[in-house]
Amino acid sequence: MHRILLTAWSLLFLNIAFAQNDSLFIRKLADEILVNSKAYENLHTLTKTVGPRLSGTPQTYKAEEWGKQALKNAGADKVYLQECKIPHWVRGGKDEGKLIVGGKETALSVLALGNSIGTGAKGITAPAILINSWDELEQRKKEVKGKIVFYNYKFNPRFIHVFRAYSDANSYRTKGASRAAQYGAVATVVRSMSESTNNYPHTGAMIYNDSFPKIPTLAVGLLDADKIATAIQQNKNVSLFVKTNAHALPDTVGYNVIGEFTGTEFPDQYITVGGHLDSWDPAEGAHDDGTGCVHSIEVLRALKAVGYHPRHTIRVVLFSDEENTGGGSKKYINEAKNEKHVFALESDAGGFTPRGFSLGTTKERMDKMTQWIPLLQPYGVYEFTGDGGGADVDSLNIKFGIPVGELIPDSQRYFDLHHAANDVFENVNKRELELGAVNMAALIYLVDKYGL
Amino acid sequence: MHRILLTAWSLLFLNIAFAQNDSLFIRKLADEILVNSKAYENLHTLTKTVGPRLSGTPQTYKAEEWGKQALKNAGADKVYLQECKIPHWVRGGKDEGKLIVGGKETALSVLALGNSIGTGAKGITAPAILINSWDELEQRKKEVKGKIVFYNYKFNPRFIHVFRAYSDANSYRTKGASRAAQYGAVATVVRSMSESTNNYPHTGAMIYNDSFPKIPTLAVGLLDADKIATAIQQNKNVSLFVKTNAHALPDTVGYNVIGEFTGTEFPDQYITVGGHLDSWDPAEGAHDDGTGCVHSIEVLRALKAVGYHPRHTIRVVLFSDEENTGGGSKKYINEAKNEKHVFALESDAGGFTPRGFSLGTTKERMDKMTQWIPLLQPYGVYEFTGDGGGADVDSLNIKFGIPVGELIPDSQRYFDLHHAANDVFENVNKRELELGAVNMAALIYLVDKYGL
Repeated sequence: MHRILLTAWSLLFLNIAFAQNDSLFIRKLADEILVNSKAYENLHTLTKTVGPRLSGTPQTYKAEEWGKQALKNAGADKVYLQECKIPHWVRGGKDEGKLIVGGKETALSVLALGNSIGTGAKGITAPAILINSWDELEQRKKEVKGKIVFYNYKFNPRFIHVFRAYSDANSYRTKGASRAAQYGAVATVVRSMSESTNNYPHTGAMIYNDSFPKIPTLAVGLLDADKIATAIQQNKNVSLFVKTNAHALPDTVGYNVIGEFTGTEFPDQYITVGGHLDSWDPAEGAHDDGTGCVHSIEVLRALKAVGYHPRHTIRVVLFSDEENTGGGSKKYINEAKNEKHVFALESDAGGFTPRGFSLGTTKERMDKMTQWIPLLQPYGVYEFTGDGGGADVDSLNIKFGIPVGELIPDSQRYFDLHHAANDVFENVNKRELELGAVNMAALIYLVDKYGL
Repeated sequence: MHRILLTAWSLLFLNIAFAQNDSLFIRKLADEILVNSKAYENLHTLTKTVGPRLSGTPQTYKAEEWGKQALKNAGADKVYLQECKIPHWVRGGKDEGKLIVGGKETALSVLALGNSIGTGAKGITAPAILINSWDELEQRKKEVKGKIVFYNYKFNPRFIHVFRAYSDANSYRTKGASRAAQYGAVATVVRSMSESTNNYPHTGAMIYNDSFPKIPTLAVGLLDADKIATAIQQNKNVSLFVKTNAHALPDTVGYNVIGEFTGTEFPDQYITVGGHLDSWDPAEGAHDDGTGCVHSIEVLRALKAVGYHPRHTIRVVLFSDEENTGGGSKKYINEAKNEKHVFALESDAGGFTPRGFSLGTTKERMDKMTQWIPLLQPYGVYEFTGDGGGADVDSLNIKFGIPVGELIPDSQRYFDLHHAANDVFENVNKRELELGAVNMAALIYLVDKYGL
């Protein structure tokens, strides 16, 4: 009995000692990042020197060069490229929109959605129909023919985590064109995926259903969306004019940019940490996803700077083409089937102050990881949810059962600037960015040390 | 035994039922605020119509009118003013600063500190001495005479909660002038209380020690602070020029603006919720403390809007003169000694996304309140600390033992704009602001329902 008690006590003290060591090491990592981080400086270079970097555009390749150099500067033991197929859709100039009520025209703030076809040089003018939901589209499908469908589904403000409001509304952006084309619409305009108080239109990928004709589709700013809705509600004769020269060029090649910090014990077992290198074209892709790239590079830099020797190889991946077709992720996941992966972490929800991690793994592993929360709480992370990894790493879990995760920063500001002209460096706060890197580095350290 | 067990079970289910009711009621409050809040609109009026509202200036009285109206609109049963003594310090025009190295002058971004005396119309030019810490001031006290002391103590980036870095550095602003004057300095310039990446100077109150001569004192922007420090480190002959027409006018009167939601059971027992109505002059006082005012008004509005009947009287207080001398708070606390107060909550740390509450009360009450955290966590609040209330309510606890608290929003961005020209409406996010009000309303509800 005494002996058992002693053992229990020893284990308890051992646990406390371990926890203290981890706590001290994470404090060291945090100090390194908060005092010496290169994340903000790296983000400045990416956003201001490379700028927007839509797949296939010349900036795609400038961004890859930036990534290679940043990884070398961070101290990566090995930096290399992984070739993948990427699309090359271009906007082809400035998009235009007008609200026409009784002959009076008002300019609208619009952006063609990614993958949309163009309208032709003359644009398209047609009567507008206001559709507030999928149900309403079905009820009024006979009225749609020859018209421009205006989808005005709003973000539901009751969702606290704004990504849920985005998921709820997003099908109007991704599927709205084909569902309207099915009933004879000539174009669609969609309320931007945002609940901001300004009028920036927010672009983003849409997908055509090949069973129906392809029609042009554009997003409109929120103030203008309200203007269109009011005009239609008040008048019988409201038309919209839309013009875009959007078009697809032939597919091309891009590269995942990879940097490794070689493991001492299991060099051929990988812990991935990444963000995506591409961005939409209206702005600098600062939060989406420049911050994810510099977060990931900073994890490697900081672990190396404090003299950590990882057991497994820590692999930073700057994914190609997340926004359009996920070409970089597909390639990485295809290669991963021949490798041993321990964990893959992503940052693709902005560089805002961190709140948690979303995980995709078994309940047993979730339980194990949840015990680490007290180590992260001083740095702002207080919950692990089971909502899976992000777009680039989730398939590692779905296809191969590899544990994945994503940083959850505070979500309130993300959709104010997501895919819009205000997603610029100036809207990233240096310390919020750094605290994201602190928590990511701490989690990678814990996974590397204790396994999963 | 069976009976005891049954009772225990009944109590457990009763607790669960209570918790469910509370959870549902708080969800209702949250929906009311996230869908129908007037906080953002109220803040817009305060910041854009009234603007900066330094104690004693004409805007002081415009702000009081705004507060009365906003409280009436929110549905207060009773709105009244509480007179108090306030100072009337004015900047008296644009402050100037120059760095002079070998005859070459560079303009500096400066702001006289609140309560500073002026320099006279010609300004003051004197050799500069760089002082990095109080220890260094003592070591070099014989070199100070006839000079302008430049305090360059920096925010320590290792503090995660940035208010701790502020507390650590702030004595250079509040006490620097007199401590330098003691050794014969002719003026002081202090590195702004911030760790921002821009060059805005940050003002704020300073206090003269009457034992020493009064000398002018100004804050300088961070980029310029680095410039001065580098110049002094590189050259023997560096001078500074400062000019300010800052001066105090005779004390005057201001008013705490108070709105009440009368209690049904204990109408003469008060739960206070407040922010301060005054602000510094360089900007609109959006986060400091417009957000605290509109948070507090929103608590009353939302509780009334959902049909809640409080047991105690909920009293919204928009405090006068927090920034200069705390005149409004002194008056309120003096009156409170004749009243019965249950709890006093303040919001004076910005309108950023909420993280917790800081409390000032006994351990027993802390333990009781800590049990409420699961009810608030869905809305972003996950910790209660024991760091006390804010500047306006803390004395209620210190003097009379009344439990007090303050909302803890995320602190990373606060000192980027605190007391500086960029503390404007545009830097407040609507949803972050509203989530602060949600958590405050929920806490007030729980205190009202369960007592303390």
